[in-house]
Amino acid sequence: MAERNFLVITHGEFGIELIKSVEMIIGSQDHVKGLGLRPGESVDNLKQLAIELVEKNTSEGRETVVFCDILGGSPSNVGLFLLSKEGVNYVATGVNMTMLISILTSGEEDTLTLLEEAKQEVEEGLRLIDLSFIKK
Amino acid sequence: MAERNFLVITHGEFGIELIKSVEMIIGSQDHVKGLGLRPGESVDNLKQLAIELVEKNTSEGRETVVFCDILGGSPSNVGLFLLSKEGVNYVATGVNMTMLISILTSGEEDTLTLLEEAKQEVEEGLRLIDLSFIKK
Repeated sequence: MAERNFLVITHGEFGIELIKSVEMIIGSQDHVKGLGLRPGESVDNLKQLAIELVEKNTSEGRETVVFCDILGGSPSNVGLFLLSKEGVNYVATGVNMTMLISILTSGEEDTLTLLEEAKQEVEEGLRLIDLSFIKK
Repeated sequence: MAERNFLVITHGEFGIELIKSVEMIIGSQDHVKGLGLRPGESVDNLKQLAIELVEKNTSEGRETVVFCDILGGSPSNVGLFLLSKEGVNYVATGVNMTMLISILTSGEEDTLTLLEEAKQEVEEGLRLIDLSFIKK
């Protein structure tokens, strides 16, 4: 397996809870962490926590791949800042359950390929199901 | 505005927290509720809570649009079951922050158009940002 960790940064608790929800399906995960910006909390504090996680991963020889809720806002600002740090090469936005399951269950070694495949899976997972699915 | 409510059903707390995170950005929302299937909890209980919400909405003359984390698993099974209920016409899967912000801030009257526009916004919001964004 490729030597990399994943970091999910979102407004509020949703990224942290998303990881727990994903673990309900695929089991406990060692290589993904979540950070949330809670209402009233300092962005500088979030940034510092993110930097510490990245530096720990890098010191262990592991890349950090960053996921954010949306492009725009403090969580993605922190994510984009992290690109200036050694060991961070990609920030992906629009995180959802399909995306996390895809990257956590893939055996793909190349990070860019991993992320492109995850994006495709997210697109395929956007299903709109209507009444034709059942007979009322 | 169209007379409709939104219901987000996910594994664990992530849908409930996603709503709170969205509210950090666009303010408090009256027409969206979240339900989560927590580890060890009964699917029948989740289904009953969902039915009660739908029936309340329908009795108030409001459509219920259902969002799920992924297609497959108990939350989406409950969502698909809800299509058999009066007032439920669509279940969308792959919910994320972009999707909820899109549907909660749209003035679109037609629900199918609303959901198709949200899907397109989610696809546009899947950004992969690399080192070229900054100069190391």
